[in-house]
Amino acid sequence: MLNYILKNVPVRTEKPRDHGLTMVMDKGLSVREIEDLLEVAGPHIDIVKLGWTTSYVTPNLSRKLKVYQDAGIPVYFGGTLFEAFIIRNQFDDYRRILDKYGMKHAEVSDGSIDIPHEEKCEYIRKLSEQVTVISEVGSKDAQKIFAPYKWIKLMKAELDAGSWKLIAESREGGNVGIYRESGEVREGLIDEILTEIPKDKIIWEAPQKDQQVWFIKLVGTNVNLGNIAPAEVIPLETIRLGLRGDTFNHFINSL
Amino acid sequence: MLNYILKNVPVRTEKPRDHGLTMVMDKGLSVREIEDLLEVAGPHIDIVKLGWTTSYVTPNLSRKLKVYQDAGIPVYFGGTLFEAFIIRNQFDDYRRILDKYGMKHAEVSDGSIDIPHEEKCEYIRKLSEQVTVISEVGSKDAQKIFAPYKWIKLMKAELDAGSWKLIAESREGGNVGIYRESGEVREGLIDEILTEIPKDKIIWEAPQKDQQVWFIKLVGTNVNLGNIAPAEVIPLETIRLGLRGDTFNHFINSL
Amino acid sequence: MLNYILKNVPVRTEKPRDHGLTMVMDKGLSVREIEDLLEVAGPHIDIVKLGWTTSYVTPNLSRKLKVYQDAGIPVYFGGTLFEAFIIRNQFDDYRRILDKYGMKHAEVSDGSIDIPHEEKCEYIRKLSEQVTVISEVGSKDAQKIFAPYKWIKLMKAELDAGSWKLIAESREGGNVGIYRESGEVREGLIDEILTEIPKDKIIWEAPQKDQQVWFIKLVGTNVNLGNIAPAEVIPLETIRLGLRGDTFNHFINSL
Repeated sequence: MLNYILKNVPVRTEKPRDHGLTMVMDKGLSVREIEDLLEVAGPHIDIVKLGWTTSYVTPNLSRKLKVYQDAGIPVYFGGTLFEAFIIRNQFDDYRRILDKYGMKHAEVSDGSIDIPHEEKCEYIRKLSEQVTVISEVGSKDAQKIFAPYKWIKLMKAELDAGSWKLIAESREGGNVGIYRESGEVREGLIDEILTEIPKDKIIWEAPQKDQQVWFIKLVGTNVNLGNIAPAEVIPLETIRLGLRGDTFNHFINSL
Repeated sequence: MLNYILKNVPVRTEKPRDHGLTMVMDKGLSVREIEDLLEVAGPHIDIVKLGWTTSYVTPNLSRKLKVYQDAGIPVYFGGTLFEAFIIRNQFDDYRRILDKYGMKHAEVSDGSIDIPHEEKCEYIRKLSEQVTVISEVGSKDAQKIFAPYKWIKLMKAELDAGSWKLIAESREGGNVGIYRESGEVREGLIDEILTEIPKDKIIWEAPQKDQQVWFIKLVGTNVNLGNIAPAEVIPLETIRLGLRGDTFNHFINSL
Repeated sequence: MLNYILKNVPVRTEKPRDHGLTMVMDKGLSVREIEDLLEVAGPHIDIVKLGWTTSYVTPNLSRKLKVYQDAGIPVYFGGTLFEAFIIRNQFDDYRRILDKYGMKHAEVSDGSIDIPHEEKCEYIRKLSEQVTVISEVGSKDAQKIFAPYKWIKLMKAELDAGSWKLIAESREGGNVGIYRESGEVREGLIDEILTEIPKDKIIWEAPQKDQQVWFIKLVGTNVNLGNIAPAEVIPLETIRLGLRGDTFNHFINSL
């Protein structure tokens, strides 16, 4: 980092962060690539998700987990892995896996399968005894559009059941859930959610730059953002600080 | 890989695979990046193409070939390199190069230049005495759309001439040959080809995720797919196994 | 590189190049990734820009600069960093930073802020006493479309003020400045600029393949191109040499 300080740059929260989180999606990094990512962007990464079920087919899983854990960066399996076990009635196997790999966090989601919401909350409750739970709201199915009041109701119930943070679903490409098929943000939905749910409780999945810019302008420098590609952590940090073209003038006006 | 096994996951063929092949396109990896790729996804990679003529301008070519060969992964030069030699009447130089670099596979294609088909088959015959030949059908030129019967006729002649596998052409970006300019698959064409040509003989170039999903749903888990980006091998493997949102419900219905 | 030479391939300039430059944008590489890039594509890289303000948030900055400098590859901070200092009245701090980090090049731009042009030229004059200056013409703002005569006037004044090269602005995604919002090149503008400004003086920002192809066809193999992604240096080199589908026939016609 430059040793000279620019004046009047927005202030970021510091690690360990409760908000202003950047959650990175690892969909198949090598051990060296993780080490490189930590060298480049370690101070800006709060938590890492091993995308969907990639952990199931990754030969170097144990070594990868160790590198993250040694660096003090929490890591968890994507929600689709949870769902793959649930649909096969293997919830107990899933709990054993979390133990076996020393996981401290787990995701509960229902993006690919239908789970009655009371049952989903029961999974959150049970897993909360074992790990810190992040639960995901919203479907990967572009046909399933919830009304805002429904999002809010589901989110409140999941917080009550024990979720540490809520993830607002999109797919890796960023085009369902809180986004229209075009990738555009469903603005009215977001506004309404934020009137009822504390903003620090939500991690917005925002893999695309325009989405990151949109949330930073709406919620601020220290909004929680997720599904960030490894190579985009440094660019995101500059956007948060008003130091990239996209947000330069948004923050400069307050100088 | 996770030590717990999910029940009822589609069964993948195992190395050395005759079908269910994943062909990766390397368009300029370093030695370390190849080592990392093998650590992350080695068991899922069957053959590597050094994209088009990238081998011609890559300073580290010999060292790269050695890493692949030591790992037992066949590697070959993209068809555009063959064409660059042919258009310059340097076929004999091309044969010497294959010898010099110890290549065991070679591609014969006519994507950028016009070669009378009988002459193309003659190249396939001659190179088959020296290496295993993969031949590519289809043009990189968006204006040259073949009718299905023409694709089939060309494919049969190339198999007769000695091709081990046929590659159905697209460009790296995935928008010509078997795809419309929009990137959409030409479905009728594919269906008709599959009535006449054994499916295990064809490698479908499918660099984009939607294309991979489409072929896996049509042909099955063990379809041969090509031009896969290094970082997409792990994601592709989850799609083949019905463990990503895109194919989760396609395979779950058979549980 | 292949030890056999293809006949009649366009001739590239050699390092240190005055034209035919490839300028690479590094937006957060690790030390090892830089080493790998140099192994893969070192002979084809003339100058590296640390994209916009990424240097401000990169923990490994000093070590990165050393790797580039040891390899004899000039490196400079993106223009947005200059602008971030200017808008805060910290020009003197900026000059000190250039000294402190041993920078030999610097960019002067006004893509995100308004600077009266005489003042911009004054910055170019002052920094030219200290480093080699590259100045960027054009705004990141899609609303600010200059007429061709205006581009030419600005470019001439900046060369007079001491700029070594002029950069024709686009954003990383390639959709403003010399490009329409669709990413298409503003052809009439480019033609007119080239009637008045020596072509070797301009570096065209061309992050997308179609843009690279367009400039190579218009200006030739040894056009100066900028904002090239690290993984695209090898592909670009094949396009310059007429060895990729996109330019294969453009150059083959002159065989």
